[in-house]
This record gives sequence, structure tokens and C-alpha cells, in this order.
Amino acid sequence: MSQDKTTNQSWGGRFSEPVDAFVARFTASVDFDKRLYKHDIQGSIAHATMLAKVGVLSDAEREQIIDGLKQIQAEIEAGEFDWRVDLEDVHMNIEARLTDRIGITGKKLHTGRSRNDQVATDIRLWLREEIDIILGELKRLQSGLLEQADKHAEVIMPGFTHLQTAQPVTFGHHLLAWFEMLARDAERLADCRKRVNRMPLGSAALAGTTYPIDRSVTCELLGFEAVSGNSLDGVSDRDFAIEFCAAAALAMMHLSRFSEELVLWTSSQFNFIDLPDRFCTGSSIMPQKKNPDVPELVRGKSGRVYGHLMGLLTLMKSQPLAYNKDNQEDKEPLFDAVDTLRDSLRAFADMIPAIQPKVEVMREAARRGFSTATDLADYLVRKGLPFRDCHEIVGHAVKHGVDSGKDLADMSLDELRQFSDQIEQDVFEVLTLEGSVNARDHIGGTAPAQVRAAVARGRELLGG
Amino acid sequence: MSQDKTTNQSWGGRFSEPVDAFVARFTASVDFDKRLYKHDIQGSIAHATMLAKVGVLSDAEREQIIDGLKQIQAEIEAGEFDWRVDLEDVHMNIEARLTDRIGITGKKLHTGRSRNDQVATDIRLWLREEIDIILGELKRLQSGLLEQADKHAEVIMPGFTHLQTAQPVTFGHHLLAWFEMLARDAERLADCRKRVNRMPLGSAALAGTTYPIDRSVTCELLGFEAVSGNSLDGVSDRDFAIEFCAAAALAMMHLSRFSEELVLWTSSQFNFIDLPDRFCTGSSIMPQKKNPDVPELVRGKSGRVYGHLMGLLTLMKSQPLAYNKDNQEDKEPLFDAVDTLRDSLRAFADMIPAIQPKVEVMREAARRGFSTATDLADYLVRKGLPFRDCHEIVGHAVKHGVDSGKDLADMSLDELRQFSDQIEQDVFEVLTLEGSVNARDHIGGTAPAQVRAAVARGRELLGG
Amino acid sequence: MSQDKTTNQSWGGRFSEPVDAFVARFTASVDFDKRLYKHDIQGSIAHATMLAKVGVLSDAEREQIIDGLKQIQAEIEAGEFDWRVDLEDVHMNIEARLTDRIGITGKKLHTGRSRNDQVATDIRLWLREEIDIILGELKRLQSGLLEQADKHAEVIMPGFTHLQTAQPVTFGHHLLAWFEMLARDAERLADCRKRVNRMPLGSAALAGTTYPIDRSVTCELLGFEAVSGNSLDGVSDRDFAIEFCAAAALAMMHLSRFSEELVLWTSSQFNFIDLPDRFCTGSSIMPQKKNPDVPELVRGKSGRVYGHLMGLLTLMKSQPLAYNKDNQEDKEPLFDAVDTLRDSLRAFADMIPAIQPKVEVMREAARRGFSTATDLADYLVRKGLPFRDCHEIVGHAVKHGVDSGKDLADMSLDELRQFSDQIEQDVFEVLTLEGSVNARDHIGGTAPAQVRAAVARGRELLGG
Amino acid sequence: MSQDKTTNQSWGGRFSEPVDAFVARFTASVDFDKRLYKHDIQGSIAHATMLAKVGVLSDAEREQIIDGLKQIQAEIEAGEFDWRVDLEDVHMNIEARLTDRIGITGKKLHTGRSRNDQVATDIRLWLREEIDIILGELKRLQSGLLEQADKHAEVIMPGFTHLQTAQPVTFGHHLLAWFEMLARDAERLADCRKRVNRMPLGSAALAGTTYPIDRSVTCELLGFEAVSGNSLDGVSDRDFAIEFCAAAALAMMHLSRFSEELVLWTSSQFNFIDLPDRFCTGSSIMPQKKNPDVPELVRGKSGRVYGHLMGLLTLMKSQPLAYNKDNQEDKEPLFDAVDTLRDSLRAFADMIPAIQPKVEVMREAARRGFSTATDLADYLVRKGLPFRDCHEIVGHAVKHGVDSGKDLADMSLDELRQFSDQIEQDVFEVLTLEGSVNARDHIGGTAPAQVRAAVARGRELLGG
Repeated sequence: MSQDKTTNQSWGGRFSEPVDAFVARFTASVDFDKRLYKHDIQGSIAHATMLAKVGVLSDAEREQIIDGLKQIQAEIEAGEFDWRVDLEDVHMNIEARLTDRIGITGKKLHTGRSRNDQVATDIRLWLREEIDIILGELKRLQSGLLEQADKHAEVIMPGFTHLQTAQPVTFGHHLLAWFEMLARDAERLADCRKRVNRMPLGSAALAGTTYPIDRSVTCELLGFEAVSGNSLDGVSDRDFAIEFCAAAALAMMHLSRFSEELVLWTSSQFNFIDLPDRFCTGSSIMPQKKNPDVPELVRGKSGRVYGHLMGLLTLMKSQPLAYNKDNQEDKEPLFDAVDTLRDSLRAFADMIPAIQPKVEVMREAARRGFSTATDLADYLVRKGLPFRDCHEIVGHAVKHGVDSGKDLADMSLDELRQFSDQIEQDVFEVLTLEGSVNARDHIGGTAPAQVRAAVARGRELLGG
Repeated sequence: MSQDKTTNQSWGGRFSEPVDAFVARFTASVDFDKRLYKHDIQGSIAHATMLAKVGVLSDAEREQIIDGLKQIQAEIEAGEFDWRVDLEDVHMNIEARLTDRIGITGKKLHTGRSRNDQVATDIRLWLREEIDIILGELKRLQSGLLEQADKHAEVIMPGFTHLQTAQPVTFGHHLLAWFEMLARDAERLADCRKRVNRMPLGSAALAGTTYPIDRSVTCELLGFEAVSGNSLDGVSDRDFAIEFCAAAALAMMHLSRFSEELVLWTSSQFNFIDLPDRFCTGSSIMPQKKNPDVPELVRGKSGRVYGHLMGLLTLMKSQPLAYNKDNQEDKEPLFDAVDTLRDSLRAFADMIPAIQPKVEVMREAARRGFSTATDLADYLVRKGLPFRDCHEIVGHAVKHGVDSGKDLADMSLDELRQFSDQIEQDVFEVLTLEGSVNARDHIGGTAPAQVRAAVARGRELLGG
Repeated sequence: MSQDKTTNQSWGGRFSEPVDAFVARFTASVDFDKRLYKHDIQGSIAHATMLAKVGVLSDAEREQIIDGLKQIQAEIEAGEFDWRVDLEDVHMNIEARLTDRIGITGKKLHTGRSRNDQVATDIRLWLREEIDIILGELKRLQSGLLEQADKHAEVIMPGFTHLQTAQPVTFGHHLLAWFEMLARDAERLADCRKRVNRMPLGSAALAGTTYPIDRSVTCELLGFEAVSGNSLDGVSDRDFAIEFCAAAALAMMHLSRFSEELVLWTSSQFNFIDLPDRFCTGSSIMPQKKNPDVPELVRGKSGRVYGHLMGLLTLMKSQPLAYNKDNQEDKEPLFDAVDTLRDSLRAFADMIPAIQPKVEVMREAARRGFSTATDLADYLVRKGLPFRDCHEIVGHAVKHGVDSGKDLADMSLDELRQFSDQIEQDVFEVLTLEGSVNARDHIGGTAPAQVRAAVARGRELLGG
Repeated sequence: MSQDKTTNQSWGGRFSEPVDAFVARFTASVDFDKRLYKHDIQGSIAHATMLAKVGVLSDAEREQIIDGLKQIQAEIEAGEFDWRVDLEDVHMNIEARLTDRIGITGKKLHTGRSRNDQVATDIRLWLREEIDIILGELKRLQSGLLEQADKHAEVIMPGFTHLQTAQPVTFGHHLLAWFEMLARDAERLADCRKRVNRMPLGSAALAGTTYPIDRSVTCELLGFEAVSGNSLDGVSDRDFAIEFCAAAALAMMHLSRFSEELVLWTSSQFNFIDLPDRFCTGSSIMPQKKNPDVPELVRGKSGRVYGHLMGLLTLMKSQPLAYNKDNQEDKEPLFDAVDTLRDSLRAFADMIPAIQPKVEVMREAARRGFSTATDLADYLVRKGLPFRDCHEIVGHAVKHGVDSGKDLADMSLDELRQFSDQIEQDVFEVLTLEGSVNARDHIGGTAPAQVRAAVARGRELLGG
């Protein structure tokens, strides 16, 4: 990247000395905002088209500008563009190159706009596109979960609360809990997208412009849903970046929870699933190691997205209107939040279909830990006792089991009747794992029939 | 609050020693979750009604329970309820009191539910109500802004970027920038409310229940939009609290920006507005002080809401399914975020209508600082020069002005023509403040006509 | 708390209307800052003593003031003090009561100081005391860890990386890792205490005072290490609160890591330790549950301290000098961070000595998972092969073991020699768990001898 | 960067399929951790030296390794090194290249260590060096402040609280408030450095190593103050990174406060200082603009450092021992926090000496706003009235002044005596600006004599 010049022709008239060389580098943004080149050019083409429509440019000028911009885009994509730090940012780099190419007409492009509304427009166009990509990855991951849940609707595992064995659930049901979280993420991103998809272009520096612009033209050309209603707000609003990061932080939180469970389940102690070698790495010193790197890394990456959210909220705290240079700091956190969420979802969408549950291990774990104690209490309620008293009775039976090393289903009828004479032979049906899960047969419950119904609802949602 | 007992009859059967006294206090939540009593009772009444409908309770039992709960609500509201720390939380306190009052039937209320789905239901009911109150305060504040903007649509003040005088704007236009921010806050809260308003009740402990519950009955009785689709997710989802805090953090960020400007504007240096004495306080040592306490405090309060958002995101990071005790920590941050946002909005809604702009001071400030320099550049563009060249020309004129202590409108025609012979007598019209603001006459622009149009749109929005 | 008055005699002279009733409540701090009463009185007594020493007060006035303050302290501690919201804060409440009690002399106490330096002094005195209490709890917890580590210096468990079995370690060694983290926390709190323990008193409102104060007198009376060097900084510096919260956040992060491990270890899957019933609670619905509530809750509480740190950093961002009302928001987060850290440490200090390792379960877990694979590689290195090649050889042996269901120590010599003919009969010694841990016999290593040496170093540190 | 290979010879033996190509990129760290190459080589040289000393390597092997590493360093610095993503990280890239260069001996370098202790050592060596650079920039900035404070020890400006004129202070005094903040930052970084400067090398993977290493040798060679006391902690401790980020966040908070004031002071409304053109930039649309970009940008950059702190705290929350892949996420936030703080300090250190106060504007501002009201109250106290009553009297005088548009010094003696007949001709001395500042003549006070004394103390501190 060239750094040889230290004056900037875009605003030099009023200045009596060039910018300090270190300051020039310190304040330049082109190193990171060049990522927006495609959307900057897209916005400039729409702006030139509108200027011609309202008579500020001639049709010939418009064509010259559009041709020039397209050639610049080709140059950039071919890696032949010379990005210059002394030109500060992506906008001035492209504009300067346009003037190089097409001469004086290039200098007319900036009529009726400012870098303040230009960059706000670029970043919204870019983010809109990235949200759509992310929604695609989300959907792919959700589809993978539905397939797995369907396949394993009857596989029984222990359900945990407090990481203690609580009640038997099905593996399919567990995976659908993840599906639900992601469904909310998709909703939130769709809600956020509405607010991203509003056009600040036309706000100019802060107060609008004296040129006879027609914002509805650019709005339609660029596919925005609406124009921003106030120019001071239009150039200084960064809510959309923060709202995106908040939605991304929630999604990464969900992935951190999935990750935690995958890490637990691949440990020797749980040993609930097998993760294919291609998603794992080894150790440089311990030859036996096969580490669940992808979920660990994703779990860790939640931190960076939380951090970016906090960074952007801090950035905007107490800023007076309208645009301040502080706002240049909006891009790097947003870029990294987008990249992190997209890649984490991609890694999960690739990995989830390859997970293999170890059915026998899960089943055996569910058998242990008195997981059907609640079923026994419910059985007693059906015999007419108040729930609270049943809870107490079963609590004593469990204590006996802990002391004698027997699970409830392993006790004899006589043993069980020590705790309540309401217990009869039919109790052993409710103490089976299948009896337990099948009995939870209402919307949201863990019964295999409910899991299949939820898969069907999920497919409909994704299809829509 | 009573603390004398240290065993808990709700789960004691399996335990061989009572809970440590310090642990009992440390893990109890009743000190703060008693705030949910009304919604806990509301949820219990709906639950009992449903249980009777599906035949788990008799109609007589249902009536006994409902009467008992209503009497307990009356006791609480009369300040006569003895909250007991040894009973851990609001739920067990109310249930224990119910059993005291109505005997064995009280023990049947908990049939088919768990504290896990109960608390998740209570907090959603509570938050839904608080969001509606907050939306009301938001609207009140927005209305105040519209009134002020309408009244001061033609008052001219300097618009700033980088806190440097940029271009003249109208005071009404500036206030409407605030309106726009709040309009997004209202949208976000409405989006959040959809996801708050889903019912986890029926998820039971984590896997659903073996009783023949009908979730659609409770859903309708409690006014929820939908039931949660997965029981494991239902008891452990705290997205709604985080999403609310994220929306609240954005709203507080906006208030911090308004506050910053109010503080600036009441300083001797700006002196743009007058804030009535009743919104200010003085100094214990400096007799002349009249401090803008309300905006300062609100600006500071942005920190606590940012902090609560971060606290809740941290809370949920890496939690395996389903409910863990960690989740008890969701309430205090959420409660404080709600209180802070509601009270801050209330303080602003009270204060904004009382703000008086100092019209002459604002106007004089707008006259200084070369605020119409862009207008001069635009004037030259209309004479046929490329924008970039015009910018350069005006830059030189400003430099001359800085050196000679004259604003552009104070220079003679000859002086101005030094920089471009395209400048003629008609230039002085574009250099007036009124000329400048009136010329920005498109949607979102600062022209008084646009301010009035925006006020009309705002009124329609609030009316809807 | 009384709220009937809405004028404040401490600064009313310049004001033409009373403070709005809601604003009075919204801006008052007495609800939470009354917690500082003892340190406020301590500071006032030192201030009065100094004022008398330099001749601003007579000795009789000094005595009258000190007596009055002591009586007020007694009133407060007896619960007989009427805190008034209209008097804003703890300082004005106490001063007003002093004047009630001793008349006109009470009005002289505030000579040469301001609430700005007064509150900054109070909160430092309070925090200094709390840090000392926290250091005491830290030490108690560390001592508990040393005792346990000493007792279990030879108990072998699997060491994990990536939650995969890595190498055998001793339980004592694992506990000492926690000890090290806490030792850094104690260091950081001691470093923080130095910066807390500087006296802003004498900064007055912002510029110092015109009275002939002698700051060295108050500094010595109050036990501060130094006086603050600049009055503008003295009244607006809140670094000490932020630095404390940062140290507290690190300590809570450590406790969240211990907690995570305790939760894992009490799960059925790990089953490494037993946690006494008195530190656990049960479930209202599942009779068998015994939940590790204390570690779960502490893990969750990390969030609130992270949040307070972020809140305070946000609070101070961009504040111009000197004191602003925003700073009133420093107290609640700091108070809660102190309470949370202190109580969490206390709960752990009580609990750690009661943890019982399940020695056989740990040992069996260490035997599985190829935990001595690195030892085999090291064995081969000693036979002359480069480490990287040995790693490869053992990797193949492990793959064979995974496929055939055998751990390394379970293979025959012939089986092992398939992978390298350097392997001989003596290999079986290095494949034992004791052989593995004893071999790591250098400072910081897991050998029991090193654990005992580390315990001795730890005791020396705590003794100091 | 090469990406063609997807197997990793460092741990491939146990694996049956290569790593997925996307996973390889997703989990690789070489893109960012190559920044540590110099410290990685430094650590490896010390490790090889120690291995030879204890007899694990021969002297010839040691020399071969050291020569190889030095040549690799030269290759890297010449830009001729081919970094390979398939080799994951900086460590494996350098080791693989070493083996390419020197053959089988290269494979022996990794004896007795692991990447877990290697990376922890590298990053500490790197951070230690960066802290020293940052301390240098801090000192340069502090020196600039002392020079300016000395030069402007008698320049009077208004001191503000609540951004309202409070009392006159000197410009030098104000600058020294900034100096104090930075002095605490330097202290905190020095405290942090102690904890950075401890050596984890020798912890190996997690449990120490079976080779007869001598950690005191590497410790001395690498200039560490101590070795880490526990291997499990040694490989997983990231406190030092978090503590650094906390100190950096505080420092950036301070810079955000300086920045806020510089932005205010360069506004037309304050107009207190002149910032040379070389630290400012202009606008692409408004020809008159000269924006204080450097302070604005630094103010904004506080957000990213706050965010990195939060990201790292989140990263470590709930991680079980020992090393997990999550920890790879420690580097990017730390690198960026270091770069941001260092460059922000550098920009300020360059800029501060060039700031010019506008002495007359400041003085005039101090004359307005009743800045000597406290002096009048103190005057009355010296006449024998209680402070609280004097405050009330002056409050009334100020109210009269607000209504009549006169400052206190502009009132006649008769006018003043309306409020208290204790006021006499000598009052006008205390109402002068010089009288006011000179009277605050105690340590920490704003009197020019105190400013000069503080400058002397500051010089001594920096000299030390």
C-alpha cells in the first residue's frame, strides 16, 4: 500500500501544513475499509444514476462515471489497484482513481453527498448481504439438526439439570432444543435486517443537500426498504451495527452452549458421541490425543463477539451529534463479528451431520442416576396422594437406593412398598426408560412422537 | 424476613443433613424474586384452571386453590406476608402459605409443573408488562420531542460534526434526530416482546410432564402468543432477558447522547438552552452552581445497563442444558435494567417539554464558524465547476477568513472574487442562514418545511 | 425513609423553584450510600480534628462536633436514624442531623471541604476495609486448599487438556493449580489496595481550598499512605473502583473455573468427588436430585462482576474534568462486586475442606484413555529416537488400542513391539500411573514430592 | 501463505483421516501468531541450551539447533519464510523448517516441552517487551505534560464540575490532573509486568516432564523473575493477558477523557486551545472544517480495548483445567490492545507539546459564571459566619447576578452588602481570579506555586 504522499487533495485548501506522517497512518481507514469497495461502487453507480435523472449530471457524464467505476472494480478484483494510505479511505481511493481515469467528470460524482452518508450507505449494503449469507448458514445448520433429530428420535439419553441426571430424554429432543435457539437467532437477524436496510444516502454531511436529489430513486436502485427520516441521525446512527453484534453475541452464546455439550460428550467420562477425526486435531506431545478443537474454538470465539458488542456500545456512548471521527471505529469489530459468526456456523453446519451418538452408552447412563424418580412420584399422585407427599416418599426411596447401591428399577416390589403401600406391580412399567419418555407426550415434551412432530414443524419453518 | 428454619420440606427426603445456614442465605432468591409474586399467582391460577379442565384437579379443588392464592396476594399487598429465606424463593413461599391456608389441596398445585418452567413463565409475564410500561414512557418522550420540534421548526442553530461548526440546522431538526433513535428503540422492544411472549409452562423440570396437560389452555389464559416448542429449551432459555437488555442498552446509549448534548448546551460556553431549576441541583460548596443532574445521571446510568447486558451474556456462556442454578442470576440484572430504562425515560419525558432554546445565542453561534461554506461550494458547482474544485476554492477563502477574522458573509464581493471570478452578487443569498437551511429541502433534510413534514409523520407513527 | 421535603437547604439559595419530586428521588443516593455512614463519620472526625489543629475551629467546637458525630453513629447503629431522601445523600443527612443536635457549630464542619472530596474519601476508607476482609477470606480458602493438597498428594486422577484424558496427575497437584490462581488474586488486591489508600480529602470541590488546611494531619489520622497530588484528579478519579472490579472479575473468573470442575466432578459421569449435602439443594419436582448449587451459583455470579467492571469503565469513558453527577453511579456496582466476591470466597472457603475425593474412581479414570502414552514416547526417546518419531510410533500404538479396545498397559510386549523393536520388558514400569507421576519431579511438576514441596512454599507464603 | 497440505505430521499417527480443509483454516493460528516468531526462537534457543546443559542434547546438537534457528529468524526477517497454514501455528512452522534445514536433530528440540508451555512462554516474552515500549511512550507523554504545565502554571481558565463553571484553576494544574492519571497507569503496568514475567516453560503439556530439565537455567537465560509454581496452572493461566487489558482499558479511559476535553476546547464555543493543522483533518464536503481527528479517534478506540478485556474475561469463564483450544483466542485481542494503547499514547505524546492555550479566551471564560462565588463564601466564613449560612448568602447574591446579568466582581459594594453587611471593600481582592487561585495554596491545590512544586515532583518521578 502506497504511503508516499501526505497531503490530501480532498480537503487541503484550508490547511497550512500537511498531516503528520504518523497521524496520517493512525487516522487512515483504507487498510480495513477497502473491504467495502464493491458496495461503495454499487452506491456510487446508483448515486450517479440519480444525479443524471434529476439533471445534475448529463447522461454522458453518468455513463462515463459508471464505466470508470466498473473498470476500477475490475482492477481491484484483479489485485491491480494501488491502495493509498494518504487518500485515507476506500471512498477517496476510488474517487481519486476515477478522476485519474476519466478526468474532470470524476470530480462531479461527489456532488450532493458526503463521505458521512456514503460510508453509512456502504456498510449497510455490505451488512445486508452478509446477514443473508449468515441466514443461509443458520438454515443449513438447522436442517442438519432436523435430520439428526429425526434419525435419533427414539434414542434415549439422560436429561440433565445442574449436570445431574434428571429424567430420561431422547437425543432427538435434545438436538431440537438447539434448533429452537437457532430459530430465535434467525428471527432476530431478520428483525435486525429491517433496520439495516434503510438508506442514509441523501443525508449528505449532516443536514441534507442543496441539490435537487431524489432519494426514492437511489433507494429503489439499491434495494433499500426505506430512506432514513433525519439527516443528522442518518450520518451518525450506528444502531444497526450494534444490534447486529447483539444478535451475533446471542447466536455465539448458543454455539458456546452446544460446544460445551459436545466437549462433554466426547470426554471419556461421558463418551456419548463420536466426532469424526476430520473435525479434531491432535497434540504435539501426547500421541493419544484427539481433541474436539472445533467446538472448543467456537466456544472461545463467543468472547470476541461479546467484546465487539461491548466495544461498539462504548464507542457510541455520549457522542454528540452528528458524525464524529470516533465512528470510524465501527468497522473492524463489525467485520470480525460477521466473519466469526459466519465461519462458526459453517463449521457447525459441516460437523453436526457427522456426529454419531453412542446409543448404548447413552442408554446405560440414563438407566443410572434414578432418572425415573419423578415418574414414580407421578405414579403415586395418580394413586391419589398430593404431589408434595409423593416427592417426599420417593426422596426416601432414593436415599435407600444411594445407600444400597440400587437404582429404583432394580428394587423389588417389597423394597419399594417400604416407602408406600400404594406401590403395586404396575410400577415397573413407569420405571422403564421408554415408559418415561413416551409418557411426556404433549407439545414440547420429549416423547418420540412429539420429536417427530417438532421435526415436521421445523421443516415447514425452514421451507417457508 | 424469617430465617429460622434451615430444612426445606420441598425436597428434603433424600438429604441426610440440613443446608448450611450461610449456604441457605447465599443460594436463596426470595429477597429479590418476591417482586414476581403477582405474576407467580397469575400463572398458578391459570395452571390450576387448566389442571381442573383436564381432570387432574376437581372443580372444588381449583376454587379452593384460586381463593387461597387471591388471599395470599392480598396479604402480600397489605405487607402482611412473612417471607421466609429458608423457603428459598417466591414460589415455595407462596406454595407453603397456600398449604397452610387450604391444607392438603395446596400440595396438589405443583402437579405437572416444576419451578423451572414456573419461574421462566413468571419472569416473562412480568417483563411483558414492564415492556408495555416502557413503551408508554418512550411514546410520551417522543410526543414531547414532536411538540418541541414543531414549535421550533424554524429556530436556527449550528449543526456540528466533530463538534466543529458544520452547517446551519434547525433546532426542530436536531430534536427529530433524537425522535428517530427512539423510534428504533420502540421497534426493537416490540420485536423483543414477541419473543418474550412465549410460554414455557408445560416444560416441567426439563422433559415435559406425564400428566395430561393442555398447554393451549394456559397459553390463552395468560395471553401468550405461542407455547415454547421444546421443553429443554423452555426451562433454560434466557434469550429474552438478554435481548431486552441489548435493546435497553441501545436505548440508554441514545439517552447518553441526548444527555451529552444537554450538558454541553447548558454550559456557559454553549449556553444554547435553559433547563428549569426543578431538573437541576446545586453544590454544597459552590453557591452559584446549577447542575444539569438529570442528564448527567442518565448518561452515567448507561454504564449499568451495558454492564447488565454483559453480565447476562457471561452468565449463559457455555452452560450445558438444561436448567442450572446459574440461571438464578438472571433476575437482578434484568430488574435493574428495566427500572433504569423506565425511570430514565420518565425523567426525560418530564424534562424535554420544559427545555427552552435560547434562540439568539443559537443563531449567533450558527453565524460564526463558516457554517455556510458548503453552500458557497454548491453555488460554484451550479456555476459549472466540478465539486472537488469548488471545495478547494472555498477552502482558500476560509483560510483567508481565519487569518483575517471574517466569516464568509462578512467579506466583500471583491474579497470573495479573489478566490473565483464565478462569484457574483447573488452569492450573499446563499450565505444567509435561512437560505442555507431552506435549500436542504428533501426528505430527511433540515428545511423547516421538512421538519414539519417529519413531525406529521411522527404523529402518525405514534397514533398507530 | 422520609421523603416529605423537596427543598434542600444545602444549596437552595440560588434556586427559584424546588426540585421536582420524581427528580429528587431519581437523583438521591442515600438509599445506597448510607452504607458509608461509618466511614463518613470517621472522615469527618479527622477533618474536624485537623481544622482545630490549624485554628479554623476552636477545641471546644471540635469536641462538640466529634461528640455529636459519635452520637449520630450510635443512632444509626441502633436503627433510630431517620434517613431523608430530600437530603440527597449520606453526607447531608449526617450533617443536617449534626446541626439539629449541636446547633450552629455543626454548620462549620463542612469548612474547607466539599462533598466531592468527602465522598471520594469515604469510599476509599470503606473499600480499604473490605479489601482486607476479602484478603482474609482468600487466605482461608487457600489454607483449605493446602490442607487438602497435602492430604491427597498421592491420589492419582486423570489430568485433562481439551477435557480429554491427557496424563495422570495427582489430586493434590490439581488443587494447587487453584491455589496459584488465588495467590495472584491476593497479589493483585494488594497492589490495588496501594492505590485505594490515597487521600483525596483536601481537594475540596475541584481546586483545593482557601483555608489553611494541613492534609498531612488528616492523612495520618485516617491511615492513608499518601495524599492525592492534584485536586481536579482527586475528586474525579474512580480508577480505584475500576481496578478493584478488574481484580474481582479475575478472581470470580478463577472461581468460575473451580466451579465448573466441581460441577463436572459431582456429575454421575465423572463421579470424582463427594460434596456434603449441606452445600447442595434438591429439586421441587425430581426427588432424587442433589444439586451442586454453590459452585453453580458462584459460576453464574462471575457474570455480575464482569458486568460491574464494564459498567464502571463505561461510566468513566469520555467524562471531562472534574466531578460530574455521573460519578454517583460508581457505588452500587462497587458495593455489589465487593459483596459478591466476599461471599463467594466465603462459600468456597467453607466448602473446600469438606470435599472428599473418590480415590478409586479417579484412579480407574486415569488408567483409561491412554494417559501414559507420553511416557511411552519419552521411554523411546531415552532409547535414542528423536521425539517426533517416537510420537508417531506411539500414535500408531494408540490407534491399535482404540480399535482393539485395549489400553497401552494392557497390551502384551509382542503387541507393543509391533510398533517399535526398541520396546522391551522394562516398558511396563513407565506405563504405571505411579511411574508416570513420580517421573515428573521438578518444580511445578505433578510428582507427590513436588506437591509436598509446593504445599510447604504455600504455607510460607500465607504465613508471611 | 501455503495451504496445500492438510495432514499434520506433528500428531498424525493416531488419526485415520486428514483434517477437513475448512477446519484446518478455521483452527490454524499462524496468520496471527507468526508475530511471535522472534520470541519463539528466543525461547527455543534457551530450551536447547538447557537441554544440552542437563545432558539431553549433546553440545553439537545444541549448536546445530541454535544455528538453524538463527538462520530461520533471518529468513523470516528477510520475508523469505513460507508460512504454512497446514502446519497450524508459528511453533510447528519453525520446527518443521528447522528439521528441513538440519535434519533429525531438529526433531529433538521439542523434547521435554509442549506447545502448551511453549506458547505461554512466547507470549509472555513478547508482552514483556511491549509493556516496556508502552512505558516509554507513557513517560514521553508525561514529560510533555510537565513541560506544558510548567510553561502555563499561571494561565487561568475556568475549572468545571458538571461542565458548569465552578472555580478558576490554572491550565498547568489541569494538565497535571492528566499527569496523575498516567502515573497510576504506569504503576499498574509495572505491577502487571511482575506477573507477566514468570516462566511457564517446563510445565510441558500439563503435568511437567519426565526429562531431567533444569528450569532455573531457562529462567535465567530468558530473564524471567520466577518460574510458575504449578504445571496445570502454568499452561492454562491467561491472567497476565487479562490484567494487561484491564490496565490498558483504564489507560484508554484516561485518554478518552483527555480527548473529550481536547474536542471541547477546540470547538468554537470553548475555543480554549489551538491544535496544529498537522494533527487534524478536513472534510470532503465542508471546505471550512478542521477536525480534531486524533483525539476523536483515540476516544473511540477506548471501545475496542474495553471490548478486548471483556472478550478475554469471557474466554476464560468456566474453563476447566488445563489447556483448552479456546485459549488460542487469547492472542488477537491482546495484540490489538497492545497496538492500540501504544499508538494512542504515541499520537498523544507527539501532539501534547504542540497544543497552544488561548490565554485571553480562557481568562475571559473564567471571569464569567460566578467562578469566585466560593471565595466570597469563604471570605464570609473568615468574618465569623458558619459556612452553611455563607453558602446561602452567596446563593442569593448569585441569583441577583443571574437576574441582573452581572458577575459578582461587577457588583458595587452596596449591591453586595444587600446580602450581608459583613462584606467590606476588601472583598474585591478575593473576587479576582489571581486571588482565587493563589489562595488554594496547599499540596494538590491549584495555586501556581503548587503547580510548580507538582512539576518538580513529577520530574523526579520520571527520572527515577
